[in-house]
Amino acid sequence: MQFPSKLIEEAVGEVSKLPGIGKKSALRIVLHLLKRDARDAQSLANALVAVRTQTQYCKKCHNIADAELCSICTSTRRDQTVICVVQDSRDVLAIENTSQYNGLYHVLGGIISPLEGVSPSDLQIDSLLERIKTAEEPVKEVVLALSPTMEGDTTAFYLQKKLKPLGLKISTIARGIPIGGDLEYTDEITLGRSILNRINYD
Amino acid sequence: MQFPSKLIEEAVGEVSKLPGIGKKSALRIVLHLLKRDARDAQSLANALVAVRTQTQYCKKCHNIADAELCSICTSTRRDQTVICVVQDSRDVLAIENTSQYNGLYHVLGGIISPLEGVSPSDLQIDSLLERIKTAEEPVKEVVLALSPTMEGDTTAFYLQKKLKPLGLKISTIARGIPIGGDLEYTDEITLGRSILNRINYD
Repeated sequence: MQFPSKLIEEAVGEVSKLPGIGKKSALRIVLHLLKRDARDAQSLANALVAVRTQTQYCKKCHNIADAELCSICTSTRRDQTVICVVQDSRDVLAIENTSQYNGLYHVLGGIISPLEGVSPSDLQIDSLLERIKTAEEPVKEVVLALSPTMEGDTTAFYLQKKLKPLGLKISTIARGIPIGGDLEYTDEITLGRSILNRINYD
Repeated sequence: MQFPSKLIEEAVGEVSKLPGIGKKSALRIVLHLLKRDARDAQSLANALVAVRTQTQYCKKCHNIADAELCSICTSTRRDQTVICVVQDSRDVLAIENTSQYNGLYHVLGGIISPLEGVSPSDLQIDSLLERIKTAEEPVKEVVLALSPTMEGDTTAFYLQKKLKPLGLKISTIARGIPIGGDLEYTDEITLGRSILNRINYD
């Protein structure tokens, strides 16, 4: 595209670097900002810089935090004896939004993937073991909430081996047919597993 | 959504105000910025503020410009005797990208729409007439490139009435079946008009 304004060209270039935004959407966003009050563009810019420069990773669970410890780790209302292990911060948000979990988290910062060169030492696994060993209130259960992919299963298997000697309960989130899912269109591996791991009515 | 970080919540709130971006895309964008260098977030922020505060409207054609006059109006290689009238800056970009037009533009800044309370006095119509009357090099033709909607047609009709006394050629962009379009799926008004306005092979 040819732009009559260098400033527009630069802004469109910057915005279209963001994930999921192409040149046309970027132009639409920039022209939208031009129509709005200058304070709107300023507060958007401030929020973007603030979130990048002022957030940090929680020292305990490695989730994104505004301070040294995140709001979940410092909450007194959370169950300190259960730790849910996830791949990244987005998973924490997804689980928090269900309102079905009241324990703590541990964000690995990735997943074991030999193809992409991610080995266990690149992830927050040692800090998980250290955290469990030195916890004030003993940890009773670790829930592995990893994606049901080959990398997720590899990571879960590795974590199980490492956690077993610590003598605590290890569980994984249930896999099966999604609520509202159609049996007919469910892949055979999911359907097979959901029969093997069937739940009794009682 | 519940965010463990206030800064993320604020950034997601700001980003999701942009057109075409919902909460989920906004979160994806913010988490993307967190993974990148802090300079990336800063240069994005700077570009957004710069485009809002440093661009202005060209005094002659009312297109977005980096200076008092836009780069098209100041160009010596453009045909000063033809003016293409469009609704907004996006239309200028669209036409420029075709590389088929070498005249000047005039951006109305909207379209006559009694329903939305936009009357001719809200648009840059007087400045168009003034510009034609006081042009150094006489304007020979005005091309109306407005959308083929009721509002577009109303605006075109109004402009024709105003421009007629000036004694110049008035044209409109061709309407018909889009290149690659399928006769069968073309609406009957477009198809009807394309038969009435048929073009001779010669």
